Amino acid sequence: MPLLVMKFGGTSVADLDRIANAAAKVKREVERGYDVIVIVSAMSGKTNELVGWVEGTSPLYDAREYDAVVASGENVTAGLMALRLQEMGISARSWQGWQVPINTTSAHGSARFVSIPRANIDAKFAEGFKVAVVAGFQGISVEGRITTLGRGGSDTTAVAFAAAFGAERCDIYTDVDGVYTTDPRISSKARKLDKIAFEEMLELASLGAKVLQTRSVELAMRYNVRLRVLSSFEDTDENSGTLVCGEDEIMESKVVSGVAYSRDEAKITLFTIEDRPGVAQAIFGPLSEAGVNVDMIVQNISEKDYDEAHPGAVTDMTFSCPINQVARAQKALEDAVAAGKIKYDELIIDTEVAKVSVVGIGMRSQVGVAARSFAALAAEGINIKVISTSEIKISVLIDRKYMELAVQALHDAFELEKTA
Amino acid sequence: MPLLVMKFGGTSVADLDRIANAAAKVKREVERGYDVIVIVSAMSGKTNELVGWVEGTSPLYDAREYDAVVASGENVTAGLMALRLQEMGISARSWQGWQVPINTTSAHGSARFVSIPRANIDAKFAEGFKVAVVAGFQGISVEGRITTLGRGGSDTTAVAFAAAFGAERCDIYTDVDGVYTTDPRISSKARKLDKIAFEEMLELASLGAKVLQTRSVELAMRYNVRLRVLSSFEDTDENSGTLVCGEDEIMESKVVSGVAYSRDEAKITLFTIEDRPGVAQAIFGPLSEAGVNVDMIVQNISEKDYDEAHPGAVTDMTFSCPINQVARAQKALEDAVAAGKIKYDELIIDTEVAKVSVVGIGMRSQVGVAARSFAALAAEGINIKVISTSEIKISVLIDRKYMELAVQALHDAFELEKTA
Repeated sequence: MPLLVMKFGGTSVADLDRIANAAAKVKREVERGYDVIVIVSAMSGKTNELVGWVEGTSPLYDAREYDAVVASGENVTAGLMALRLQEMGISARSWQGWQVPINTTSAHGSARFVSIPRANIDAKFAEGFKVAVVAGFQGISVEGRITTLGRGGSDTTAVAFAAAFGAERCDIYTDVDGVYTTDPRISSKARKLDKIAFEEMLELASLGAKVLQTRSVELAMRYNVRLRVLSSFEDTDENSGTLVCGEDEIMESKVVSGVAYSRDEAKITLFTIEDRPGVAQAIFGPLSEAGVNVDMIVQNISEKDYDEAHPGAVTDMTFSCPINQVARAQKALEDAVAAGKIKYDELIIDTEVAKVSVVGIGMRSQVGVAARSFAALAAEGINIKVISTSEIKISVLIDRKYMELAVQALHDAFELEKTA
Repeated sequence: MPLLVMKFGGTSVADLDRIANAAAKVKREVERGYDVIVIVSAMSGKTNELVGWVEGTSPLYDAREYDAVVASGENVTAGLMALRLQEMGISARSWQGWQVPINTTSAHGSARFVSIPRANIDAKFAEGFKVAVVAGFQGISVEGRITTLGRGGSDTTAVAFAAAFGAERCDIYTDVDGVYTTDPRISSKARKLDKIAFEEMLELASLGAKVLQTRSVELAMRYNVRLRVLSSFEDTDENSGTLVCGEDEIMESKVVSGVAYSRDEAKITLFTIEDRPGVAQAIFGPLSEAGVNVDMIVQNISEKDYDEAHPGAVTDMTFSCPINQVARAQKALEDAVAAGKIKYDELIIDTEVAKVSVVGIGMRSQVGVAARSFAALAAEGINIKVISTSEIKISVLIDRKYMELAVQALHDAFELEKTA
């Protein structure tokens, strides 16, 4: 029997009507001949309520007890979904993490999968059950304690089950109807993509397109799980949404698939640092230890060979990080100076920047994407502060006030409103 | 290390403040040298919310999924209580039913205990943990599914743990401060009892004194678990509340310990039925099958030997049942008539009756309690409709409008306001 994994997020199961709506989608797939594993999140708002109680009880809470409390939200949805399916005449049962079991590491609050043995659920399918409803976001540690997976955990649960059970596809039902060439709130020309490659989705996810959590896409890519993002709130069929898949399934692709952005960036520049081996480590080591997520890094070429204050070669170093980590970054750098590990003449912090990126696997075989991007920004008079590139992505840091304009200009430049 | 079981009901853990208050009571016992097993109910209102969702999803729900959903309420409280204790510097961890494991039968919604192995919790106490917080009301079936115990389940869980772990005592914290000689809302002379025997408590519980569920008292009596009922909302010490214990601990007891009542009774009389072997079975068999809880039964002596309509001996049969089961009882009897299993001339239903009972283990060795009771009621002009007695109880059915008066008269007659 072919098997499908279907995942419903918090807004898709927010109340009994929505659970019924989601169950109807499951029923349709059963009627089309699939065995189905349904992964559910907590009803929206419930996890926040539980987290609020935990934090209200113990601000520096024991993560083991946090997990035991918070995982209960998904258990409730799983039971209700199974009941609703039964009510529709579908033989279904709910599974909590420990019942499968979903074996994870003991890193409470951010556990990772160790194994998902198929035996128990397969036995139920063999008995004639058509649907296994699994509580997302949770697992069980080797100590027999409930664990949770951290942010986006239910998406990751869905992909892990699809991999473990060899599912034909993993459908992620959410409150958007697919992945777009860019944010439709910024460009009215944004177009829904029929397909997108894992690598592109990864760049888009990590660049701030919030449709799928990075970790679930990484897992899907590693196990070649075909992911589909589609809407819970529309009538959907086998062609709905956006398929996230391997490049081999994408016959003809445009050079650029999408334009992503990240609004809350900051740029930090250290002027006149020593240009010698080990200085980068001396700067970024303390930042890493302080938990600063450094993103783009640019080091200017060494310009000065000698002056009185700086007997050796000197350079400048610029990096970006999320704006809410600036204070932490500044303290880490000043501590490093105080400890004599680094020195610089001046520290300049710019909190008025944003990152805009063009992403596409087609770049690998096409030249000129960078030039075309820079030309489009220049035509709008937008100054580029930092550039960073990867094999399938070009990112620029610009003044935040130009962010929307830059997204629109790049979307136009690569004609993303048109299909390939 | 001596061990105590402490149970907190839904109103005692209704919000974070009350959980903190309950945790403070646990801490006090730990500081007095006890290892403690805490049994918690769901925060009040939560179970009803979950049950509402289940019934809203599937009116004729699968009891297995009902249990999976509803048990989550206790899991949340258990985690929060453990967190609060940790915050107070007490080493505590939460236990869900399957983690202990609390092995039960597979009768979902009304499961019964099979075994509570001590090994896992004992191992934690041996590691230095002082408190095990156990989710009440739940267990795990041999199929690995979550079960619930039905009404009063958390009290029963507490008693079962006290028995399994040889606890010195099982303290039931609730919203009243003990067991009274009668309902203080009816008689201002009602007095809190320091001690009461299991048998008396059983009669009082089943007669409508709602402090403890019958089943938990039965279990306590069978395993000789000393139970204490006391208030969550007052400062309490080792002498607070009411101790429910074996008769041997009650040195000197009054003849009557308390006066109980049950307001919502109905009396059903079948006039002129055949007086022959098997007729009682023919009447009460169908009532039992219809789920009618028949309480008192009175059969008049056979008065007539012969008349034209009734060639054999005839009699009348009267019984009482809860008022909300009258319709069901009437239908069962009429169906039995239609099926030719029984016949009667007339069915009289009186829904304006109440039951009042005097209870006391002292009755066993004292005569005259019945006479004194009837005299007290007669002095108030209260007519007795049905009488039933057991070794330690005398119950009468009377007009409901005299119920309060009857309770007060009996309380006065046995001078229950005075200590023994």
